[in-house]
Amino acid sequence: MEEKNDVKKISEASKETPKSQLNVEEMAAFCKRRGFVYPSGDIYGSLSGFFDFGSLGVELKNNIKNSWWKTFVQSREDVVGLDGAIITHPNVWKASGHVDCFADIILQCSNGKCKEKVRADTFLEEKLGIKLEGIKANEVNKKVSENNLTCPKCKSSFEEANDFNLMFETQVGPSKDKSNTAYLRPETAQLIFADFKLVMENARAKLPFGIAQIGKAFRNEISPREFLFRSREFEQMEIEFFVHPQKINECPDKMFNEIKDVKANILSGYAQEKGKDVEQVTFGIIGTKFTSKWHAYWLGAMYKWFLDLGIKPENLRIRQHKKEELAHYAGACFDIEYKFPFGWKEIHGNADRTTFDLTQHIKVSQKDVAVYDEESKQKVVPYVAAEPSQGVERAMLAFLFDAYSYDPARENVVLRLHPMLAPVKVGVFPLVNKLDEEARKVYDLLRKEFVCAYDRSGTVGKRYARNDEAGTPYCITVDFDGVNDKTVTVRDRDTTRQIRVKIAELKDVIRRLLNSEIEFEDAGNMVK
Amino acid sequence: MEEKNDVKKISEASKETPKSQLNVEEMAAFCKRRGFVYPSGDIYGSLSGFFDFGSLGVELKNNIKNSWWKTFVQSREDVVGLDGAIITHPNVWKASGHVDCFADIILQCSNGKCKEKVRADTFLEEKLGIKLEGIKANEVNKKVSENNLTCPKCKSSFEEANDFNLMFETQVGPSKDKSNTAYLRPETAQLIFADFKLVMENARAKLPFGIAQIGKAFRNEISPREFLFRSREFEQMEIEFFVHPQKINECPDKMFNEIKDVKANILSGYAQEKGKDVEQVTFGIIGTKFTSKWHAYWLGAMYKWFLDLGIKPENLRIRQHKKEELAHYAGACFDIEYKFPFGWKEIHGNADRTTFDLTQHIKVSQKDVAVYDEESKQKVVPYVAAEPSQGVERAMLAFLFDAYSYDPARENVVLRLHPMLAPVKVGVFPLVNKLDEEARKVYDLLRKEFVCAYDRSGTVGKRYARNDEAGTPYCITVDFDGVNDKTVTVRDRDTTRQIRVKIAELKDVIRRLLNSEIEFEDAGNMVK
Repeated sequence: MEEKNDVKKISEASKETPKSQLNVEEMAAFCKRRGFVYPSGDIYGSLSGFFDFGSLGVELKNNIKNSWWKTFVQSREDVVGLDGAIITHPNVWKASGHVDCFADIILQCSNGKCKEKVRADTFLEEKLGIKLEGIKANEVNKKVSENNLTCPKCKSSFEEANDFNLMFETQVGPSKDKSNTAYLRPETAQLIFADFKLVMENARAKLPFGIAQIGKAFRNEISPREFLFRSREFEQMEIEFFVHPQKINECPDKMFNEIKDVKANILSGYAQEKGKDVEQVTFGIIGTKFTSKWHAYWLGAMYKWFLDLGIKPENLRIRQHKKEELAHYAGACFDIEYKFPFGWKEIHGNADRTTFDLTQHIKVSQKDVAVYDEESKQKVVPYVAAEPSQGVERAMLAFLFDAYSYDPARENVVLRLHPMLAPVKVGVFPLVNKLDEEARKVYDLLRKEFVCAYDRSGTVGKRYARNDEAGTPYCITVDFDGVNDKTVTVRDRDTTRQIRVKIAELKDVIRRLLNSEIEFEDAGNMVK
Repeated sequence: MEEKNDVKKISEASKETPKSQLNVEEMAAFCKRRGFVYPSGDIYGSLSGFFDFGSLGVELKNNIKNSWWKTFVQSREDVVGLDGAIITHPNVWKASGHVDCFADIILQCSNGKCKEKVRADTFLEEKLGIKLEGIKANEVNKKVSENNLTCPKCKSSFEEANDFNLMFETQVGPSKDKSNTAYLRPETAQLIFADFKLVMENARAKLPFGIAQIGKAFRNEISPREFLFRSREFEQMEIEFFVHPQKINECPDKMFNEIKDVKANILSGYAQEKGKDVEQVTFGIIGTKFTSKWHAYWLGAMYKWFLDLGIKPENLRIRQHKKEELAHYAGACFDIEYKFPFGWKEIHGNADRTTFDLTQHIKVSQKDVAVYDEESKQKVVPYVAAEPSQGVERAMLAFLFDAYSYDPARENVVLRLHPMLAPVKVGVFPLVNKLDEEARKVYDLLRKEFVCAYDRSGTVGKRYARNDEAGTPYCITVDFDGVNDKTVTVRDRDTTRQIRVKIAELKDVIRRLLNSEIEFEDAGNMVK
C-alpha cells in the first residue's frame, strides 16, 4: 500500500517547542497529541491523504459546519439545504465533464524498480520556476525533453506523460464489472445541479435563491500534502446561488450594505499580470469594478464569516483568477486565501459559474430544468452568479493556525479559538478533591446546555493549561468560599482574568459570554 | 447501469390518498413531493440504493443526529466523539474479518441472456419458508438442487452459488491496480477500535467509557429495498462502550435507575425458540435476567431516546437474538424493532461485542492496545459491554411513519414530529399581503434563533396545511389587531388551537414551547 513520508513525520514528531507559529508538521503533531486529528489507520502505518478526527477535532469540525449552516442556510430566507449522496448516477459526472476532463497529468519513472510518479504541473513548476495553468500532456513531454528533466528519486528518464483521472471509481451492484462503474463524488456542486428542479419546486423557491450543501468529496490526489490542506477525502461547504441571467447585479441594497464597507486586500488578475502587489479595496468596489454585485456580495459574506469567527484580517486576502486560469465553466473567480506557514493558499473559492452546469444537465438528461420567470414572462436557465465553496478541513486548519499561540508568561499553549468554535465551552474543576461533589453539581447544572469538561486531575494550574491548549474559553473553579456564598470563579482563557459569579446566575452568564452579549469584566465581580 | 423497480415506482407514484397509514411506496412519494428524500440522480433515472435529502430532509436528518450526539456525547462525561475517514488503511478490514467474511451468497441464473442475480438466503427463505441464518454456499447449492429451484425470472437453472463481498472497493494512489485496493467502510465501528488507544490517551479517559461516531457507511447490497430501509449508502450513529472485562455488571445505580423502570415488549430468544409471543418487561429485568447491567443500561437508554422523541410505545419492541444467529464477535445481542408497514424491522442493534475486535487489532497490528487498570493493577483488553448502533435513515423512516397522519377535519396531512426533530420550527405569515412589512419584522426577530419559514402565498388555511404537512409545530400570524396591540397569534400544529402572545415575549415563549418547558395553553391568552 502506498504510504507518504509526511504522514510518518506527523506520527513521529515530538512535542511542540514553545513558539507561537508552528510549521505544518508541528501542527499535525499538536493535533495528534491533543486529539484533534489523526492519520487514519495509524496503527497500520496510516494511509496517505486520509484523516480521522478525535474527540476535540470532531467538535471543532462540527462547530465550523454548524456556524456556516446556521449563518447561510437556517437564518436566511433565500437559501435552502440539500444533502446528496456520495455515490450517484454516473451520468451526472458525464454531463459535468468530470469523466472526460477531471484529470491531472502524471509523469512516471521508466525505471521498473523505481516507478516513481509525480504530478507533472507541480513538478515542472518547481523545476522551472514558472506557473503552468492548464498544461496538456504533449506540452509536458516537450518541457521534459527540452530541459532534460529526470526522475527526482533515481534520475532515470520519464515515460510519456499521461492523464490521470482524479475520481475514485467503484462498482455498484452484484456484478463487479466495468458497466457498473460509479464514482465517489469529486465535488458536492453537481448534486445541487442534478437536483435543482426538484429542490426549487419542493421548497417553492423563486429566483434569486441558493441551494447549500455540506458533505464529503473525494479526489485521488497524486501527492496529498500539507496535512489537512490537500487530502483525498475531505468535506465541502458550498452554495450555488441562482439568479435570473439578466439580473446578476440586482443584489438588494439591504443585503449589499452588509458587506460593502468590509475591507480586504486583493491581488487582482490585472495586478498579477503586471507582477504587482496587493491593493486594499472594499467589497463595494469589488462589486462595481471587478465582478457582478451578487458575486461580490457572496464573496464578501463569506470573507466576513471568517473575520467574525476571529481570523486575523492580516492573514486573509482575496485573489482574483487571471483570465487564462479560469475553469471552462467560470465567468469570473475569486479565492479567499489564508497565510499558512507554507504560503498564501486558497481556503475559499467563489466562481461565477454562468449557466454552464444546468445547460449541460439539460442537454444530457433531456429534462427541462428551465424556470418560468413571472416578471419577464419567459423561461430562463438560471444563472449561477456565485458559488461560495470551501473545504471544512481547510477552514479548520486556518482557524487552528490562527488561534495557536504560546504564552511565555503561562509557559503553555493557548488556543485562542472563537467561543463559537471552541470544542469544549466550559471546564469545571473542584479546587481540591474534597469539593468533588459540589463541583459536580455545577457540572450537572451546565452540561445539558454547554459542552463541558469535568477535570479533577493534577493541580488547578495544570488543569488551566490543559484547557487553554484545548481552546476552552472559560474555566470554572469551585472553592471553599464559593460553597459558603454560592459562587464560583470563572476564568477567561485569553486574559487569565477571573470573576466571581453567583451559581444562580451562572448559566445565564455563560450563555451571554459565549454569545458575546456581555464583556467578561461586566459578567461578575472581578477577582483581584 | 443497474436500476431498481421500486425506485421507478417512487418517482411515478401520485399524491397520497387521505389515510393515516402509508405503505412504503406512498411514503417515498410523500418524501419526494415534500422535499424530504429523492432517489439520487433522479433526472438520469436514479441509482438504486442511493438517496439525496431535500431541504426538509436534510434538517430532519441533522436534527436526529444532533439530538443523539447531544444526548449521548456532549452532555455526558463518559462518552467522547470520533469522526473517522470513510476510506482507511485496508488492514483495518483484514483484521476485522470484513475482507474475508463480509459477504452474502449470490445465486446467478445460468441463462446468458438473463443472468439474474438473487441473494441466496432471502430467496431460499421466501421459497422454503424457513429461517436460514449463516448458511454456507455449499448448503445453498444443496437446497437449490433438493428443491429444484430455478431462476425467478426465466426459470433456467442457477450456476453454483458464490460469495459476494458487500464492501465497495476502490483504488487509492496514482496506480489503479489491485495492490492499491481500499474499501469504503461497511461500518463505522472499526474506526473506533483502530483509534481506540489514541482516543483514550488524548481524552484522558478511564474505563468505563465510550467512543461515539456518526458517519456514512456503504454496503453493496444485492437488492436494496424498502426505500430508506435497506440502501447502499447510509449513515450510522454508534457507540462502543468499553469496560473492564470483570466489571460488565458494574453500571452505577444512579445511571441504571434512569432506565430500570422503562417498560418494553420483548421477544426473547427463548420465546422465539418456543414460537411464543412477546412479553412485557422492564430494562431492570433485562439487566438481571437477559444480559449484563451495562448492556441493559445502554439498550434502555437508546429505547428511551426513541420514546422521548415521540415514537409511540406500541410501535417499538425488543428482540433478543437467538444463540445461533449471534455474530461471531457477539456475546449477546438485542435489536430495537419498529413496526413498519412492511413488518417489524430492526432500527437499532446492540451487541455485547466482548474483547473480539480489540484483540484482533492487537494481533494484526502488533501494537499494544491494552489498558493498565489502576484498581486491579493489571493490563486488560477492554471489553465492549454494549455497542448501541443504529442507522440515521432508519430512525428517520421510523419517525416519519410514526408522525404521519391524515386529519379528516382539516382535510390535510399532519406530520406530528417532535418539536426537536421538526425541520422548520416556526412558520410566520402576514394575514394579508398588506401586513408583509410587519410580519417580516417578526420573522427577523426569530430567524437567528429558530429555523423559520416565511410564507405569504395563498390563503392562511393553505399556509397552515402546508406547514402541518412539513411538521412545523408552531405557526405565527400577524394580523391587524396585533399590529395595534403588538401581539400575534400562535397556532399549535397538533391541536390547531391558538393563543395570543405579546411580540416582546414571543422569542421566549417559542423557546420554552420548543423545549417543552411550558404547556401551550399557559403560553399566552387562548383565542376563542
